[in-house]
Amino acid sequence: MVSIIMGSDSDLPIMREAAEVLEGMDIPLEVTVVSAHRTPDRLFDYAKGAAGRGIQVIIAGAGGAAHLPGMVASLTPLPVIGVPIKSRNSIDGWDSVLSILQMPGGIPVATVALDGAKNAGLLAARILGAQDEAVRGRMVAYQEALRAAVETKYRKLEKEGWK
Amino acid sequence: MVSIIMGSDSDLPIMREAAEVLEGMDIPLEVTVVSAHRTPDRLFDYAKGAAGRGIQVIIAGAGGAAHLPGMVASLTPLPVIGVPIKSRNSIDGWDSVLSILQMPGGIPVATVALDGAKNAGLLAARILGAQDEAVRGRMVAYQEALRAAVETKYRKLEKEGWK
Amino acid sequence: MVSIIMGSDSDLPIMREAAEVLEGMDIPLEVTVVSAHRTPDRLFDYAKGAAGRGIQVIIAGAGGAAHLPGMVASLTPLPVIGVPIKSRNSIDGWDSVLSILQMPGGIPVATVALDGAKNAGLLAARILGAQDEAVRGRMVAYQEALRAAVETKYRKLEKEGWK
Amino acid sequence: MVSIIMGSDSDLPIMREAAEVLEGMDIPLEVTVVSAHRTPDRLFDYAKGAAGRGIQVIIAGAGGAAHLPGMVASLTPLPVIGVPIKSRNSIDGWDSVLSILQMPGGIPVATVALDGAKNAGLLAARILGAQDEAVRGRMVAYQEALRAAVETKYRKLEKEGWK
Amino acid sequence: MVSIIMGSDSDLPIMREAAEVLEGMDIPLEVTVVSAHRTPDRLFDYAKGAAGRGIQVIIAGAGGAAHLPGMVASLTPLPVIGVPIKSRNSIDGWDSVLSILQMPGGIPVATVALDGAKNAGLLAARILGAQDEAVRGRMVAYQEALRAAVETKYRKLEKEGWK
Amino acid sequence: MVSIIMGSDSDLPIMREAAEVLEGMDIPLEVTVVSAHRTPDRLFDYAKGAAGRGIQVIIAGAGGAAHLPGMVASLTPLPVIGVPIKSRNSIDGWDSVLSILQMPGGIPVATVALDGAKNAGLLAARILGAQDEAVRGRMVAYQEALRAAVETKYRKLEKEGWK
Amino acid sequence: MVSIIMGSDSDLPIMREAAEVLEGMDIPLEVTVVSAHRTPDRLFDYAKGAAGRGIQVIIAGAGGAAHLPGMVASLTPLPVIGVPIKSRNSIDGWDSVLSILQMPGGIPVATVALDGAKNAGLLAARILGAQDEAVRGRMVAYQEALRAAVETKYRKLEKEGWK
Amino acid sequence: MVSIIMGSDSDLPIMREAAEVLEGMDIPLEVTVVSAHRTPDRLFDYAKGAAGRGIQVIIAGAGGAAHLPGMVASLTPLPVIGVPIKSRNSIDGWDSVLSILQMPGGIPVATVALDGAKNAGLLAARILGAQDEAVRGRMVAYQEALRAAVETKYRKLEKEGWK
Repeated sequence: MVSIIMGSDSDLPIMREAAEVLEGMDIPLEVTVVSAHRTPDRLFDYAKGAAGRGIQVIIAGAGGAAHLPGMVASLTPLPVIGVPIKSRNSIDGWDSVLSILQMPGGIPVATVALDGAKNAGLLAARILGAQDEAVRGRMVAYQEALRAAVETKYRKLEKEGWK
Repeated sequence: MVSIIMGSDSDLPIMREAAEVLEGMDIPLEVTVVSAHRTPDRLFDYAKGAAGRGIQVIIAGAGGAAHLPGMVASLTPLPVIGVPIKSRNSIDGWDSVLSILQMPGGIPVATVALDGAKNAGLLAARILGAQDEAVRGRMVAYQEALRAAVETKYRKLEKEGWK
Repeated sequence: MVSIIMGSDSDLPIMREAAEVLEGMDIPLEVTVVSAHRTPDRLFDYAKGAAGRGIQVIIAGAGGAAHLPGMVASLTPLPVIGVPIKSRNSIDGWDSVLSILQMPGGIPVATVALDGAKNAGLLAARILGAQDEAVRGRMVAYQEALRAAVETKYRKLEKEGWK
Repeated sequence: MVSIIMGSDSDLPIMREAAEVLEGMDIPLEVTVVSAHRTPDRLFDYAKGAAGRGIQVIIAGAGGAAHLPGMVASLTPLPVIGVPIKSRNSIDGWDSVLSILQMPGGIPVATVALDGAKNAGLLAARILGAQDEAVRGRMVAYQEALRAAVETKYRKLEKEGWK
Repeated sequence: MVSIIMGSDSDLPIMREAAEVLEGMDIPLEVTVVSAHRTPDRLFDYAKGAAGRGIQVIIAGAGGAAHLPGMVASLTPLPVIGVPIKSRNSIDGWDSVLSILQMPGGIPVATVALDGAKNAGLLAARILGAQDEAVRGRMVAYQEALRAAVETKYRKLEKEGWK
Repeated sequence: MVSIIMGSDSDLPIMREAAEVLEGMDIPLEVTVVSAHRTPDRLFDYAKGAAGRGIQVIIAGAGGAAHLPGMVASLTPLPVIGVPIKSRNSIDGWDSVLSILQMPGGIPVATVALDGAKNAGLLAARILGAQDEAVRGRMVAYQEALRAAVETKYRKLEKEGWK
Repeated sequence: MVSIIMGSDSDLPIMREAAEVLEGMDIPLEVTVVSAHRTPDRLFDYAKGAAGRGIQVIIAGAGGAAHLPGMVASLTPLPVIGVPIKSRNSIDGWDSVLSILQMPGGIPVATVALDGAKNAGLLAARILGAQDEAVRGRMVAYQEALRAAVETKYRKLEKEGWK
Repeated sequence: MVSIIMGSDSDLPIMREAAEVLEGMDIPLEVTVVSAHRTPDRLFDYAKGAAGRGIQVIIAGAGGAAHLPGMVASLTPLPVIGVPIKSRNSIDGWDSVLSILQMPGGIPVATVALDGAKNAGLLAARILGAQDEAVRGRMVAYQEALRAAVETKYRKLEKEGWK
């Protein structure tokens, strides 16, 4: 089971892409809001309890000085995927990227691209697929579908011409 | 009383400048290590208990994806001063600067310059001086001493010439 | 009493957030325009006289090569909070952020996030609360309200689902 | 089993930190050199064959315009961890960070901090621990050891004082 | 013959400028989609076969963590021109610029400006013109036309005045 | 007469290059220290009095959050040349560059390159030469000497070969 | 007399602010287009002839890899003011800023803020005013008008209140 | 024939890598110094005459506000390869990278990595190889040698182990 959390419900339009990917691969998931700064007690309870509730992977999205993914990672032994979000007042997204990526040695966060919630969902699936053949098969099929979609496009472009 | 914390004892050569400033102004202080990522429980206990212990201002220094100042600020109503530290593997200090500065609305951190622990100490003194005439007087004297030091320098330069 | 100044009246839509926060906490405040570059004499008079008028904290917002917060800090022993503003022609806000944050040793400015006037107001309240129990109590209540607002949101999200 | 690859043997002083972490947790590993640009055929053979050889997680480190992690991720359904390396002639590491982090939607790479090979090893262990109780237990112990090491340091600092 | 490829058909509005320049100089061209990450096998077949098919210059455009130009260059001895594209979710274009520009020693990519597909077409023409007098003559004429267009503009401005 | 000021005597090793250039052109000059932050009163007296003392051009160098050039420019009608200095704790010089360059509309500062004091001296000479034929003649001679020095170098390189 | 040039007539909406300032101060001016890259011969003729035509100051605006100000400065002994312009396809303006600001030692360009044509006009006036009392007097009046405009604004704000 | 030029003889330690690559492939070459800013007349004569002298490709290296590659490209129809050099006082190399890369539409420069003179030589060889089978064959051999060198390294690493 994958747990998707975000610092604010205003992050949902981005973070729902992670949920959609997981749902499309029949991977159970939950979605909620945990704010590192406004609900620190909830952050602690959530992160310390996640493994015990059967969660296997956590996806955490946050913007600005984004402390949510790193703090969750410090409170759980589970793999945590961080999604930097380009929030209002962000300095072009650099703040959330660096706040999540540059974790000190000892506490890893698996960081994906700015606003890259879709890839966070796919990375969670790959993590589960590392030890689950069925999930891995779905990932292989997903990659084949990507390939096929590009094929359709280039065949169309080559047939119709670039003009 | 001012409490100075840092994410690692390797930050002490920088952070001691804050302590020296405060000591020079006869302001009581404590210095210790609190790691947001390696000792999250200690972080919680420290931050929640600070006001009750009589602490009035907290100075927190950290490098990389620096979550310590912001997390402390979320757990206390006290003013928190953040010192970005240019640690090993830092991307030129940008990571710690943005991780501390770009706090979301609701939880303020008073950020000073990169490796600016000295100014953190001075800011703590100004904060206490906002309501304490004696401390404010020492700040006025400090600024006068700065002025006098520059005067000595420019008199020497003007006398000896720039060559 | 808190004094809020800004380099131009075009900064008011941002800076009023600081005023609103302080008003909401029953902290007396004043709001005016002081331009470091266009009214340097006024800058001097304002900054040198602030402490004598009973001001305890100064909040100064400015954009571009933002010299207002630092110059005020050099002319007063009071704590000065700097708000970098992303003005027209700014290079993504980096100019005002660095002009305010990177003060040399000796003259501190408490810098908040880009366009972070709301946090400037909250920081001023925390500074007053360092020595004023009543104000600190209001800050505790403010943080509790933040927590409650997030709780409402996550309960709604968990009840209604992410779709 | 975890496979650690790097674009050049000059990356070994950094990447060996990943190997040491895994070895310390009794996780089987292999280490080799695969260059995306100088040995593209080897890249293809390696990445396409990894899952079939029983590899569960791949750690790939590269500097400059670092294409190794992303290309491997496009050729395998396994989770790929990317380590940006600050190589000679790098523009302060930004090139490798962005070349690895900013993968397009569809092909995720789990990026860690600049030169963050240690965290790459720890992330691999967390990924295996997502479905392996024994590995997860070792991660819990690792985090406890981090905590204890900080405790030793702050007790020493508090006992001996900051001077 | 010049081959123009791009990572996604969404890049066509930018990349068509390269095609238009070449067409305007009567240089034969082809345009298609090759995705490094979604169609890696196609990438290999395309790049390895390009020289044998009579292609003399390759123009490759891509956004984000742009691996297409560099991977093609590693698989062909032909000159490869890289066009960084400012895609959706890009961090202001820095990711594609650095992913293409900062190639390691041994595998060169001729990088042009962000979204600079027009210049990519012109560079391809100059490359062919290095050994083909007719093409070089068309480049001379093109530069003369640029000059004449500016002359028309400044004569108009000088005649009508700047108001 | 040209006046050269700097924020700290630690800037003298850089700023003396401006003085040397002016001396080499027989342009009268003075050199002193004026700190915007530590000696604000001196800054006011200096800047307001400069024109009356017969100063025609001011060169001001400063590092970090460099307010000296801009504040002087706000207090004088004279042309002010700003030299950004890469001081200790600077964030790669970006802070001083942006603090000096990005002046708001109304108050210009003529900014030169990071640590570019030599060019500041040359710019001062060009400014005087705008209305002084003798100085302009010396600038023409200076440029001819630059040309001749390069000629010596390329003749040597062409004669001795690049090996 | 001041000469205002720009790399393209698309820069006129920015560069006209320089012309307006000069016109407002009764300083004679000319405005035209000179492209370093598309009309290099014109660039040479223009720059070499400027001093002989009685031009005293040159203002040159350009975007992207902006070579116009620097090349003009290499071909004339006159003071050259460079205006970085945020053109289409610019990387947030950094390209034009750095292409103009970071001139090598020997050839100075007086750089103003991004899109700062107004300040370029004011700087030209200050340069002329360095040796022309009448122009300097107009600059003093201009600065007084700036002051008065701010005074009007703060009186209005203080009277009407910030709400 | 390939012509290698640089803005200063201090660039020779970097630029000689281009010469060595070309010499190793038996491609005739010349090396000299041409400064855009200090020898603009020489720049014009050199660039206008290059094609007539039988030059087929130009490699131009420069640091800081690097105008040499772009100005040469505006004066010749030949392909011009630009090498950004991280000179003294450079802002981490960003200035030369952007001054060379971000050329406006119409005048292309083939930009390689910071200090990437080796790749500039290889790109010149690829450009000649576009229409010269013998040179292309040497490029194929060069790439095979790169591959073989990596093979030696990974065989050694796999044999001796990573410890």
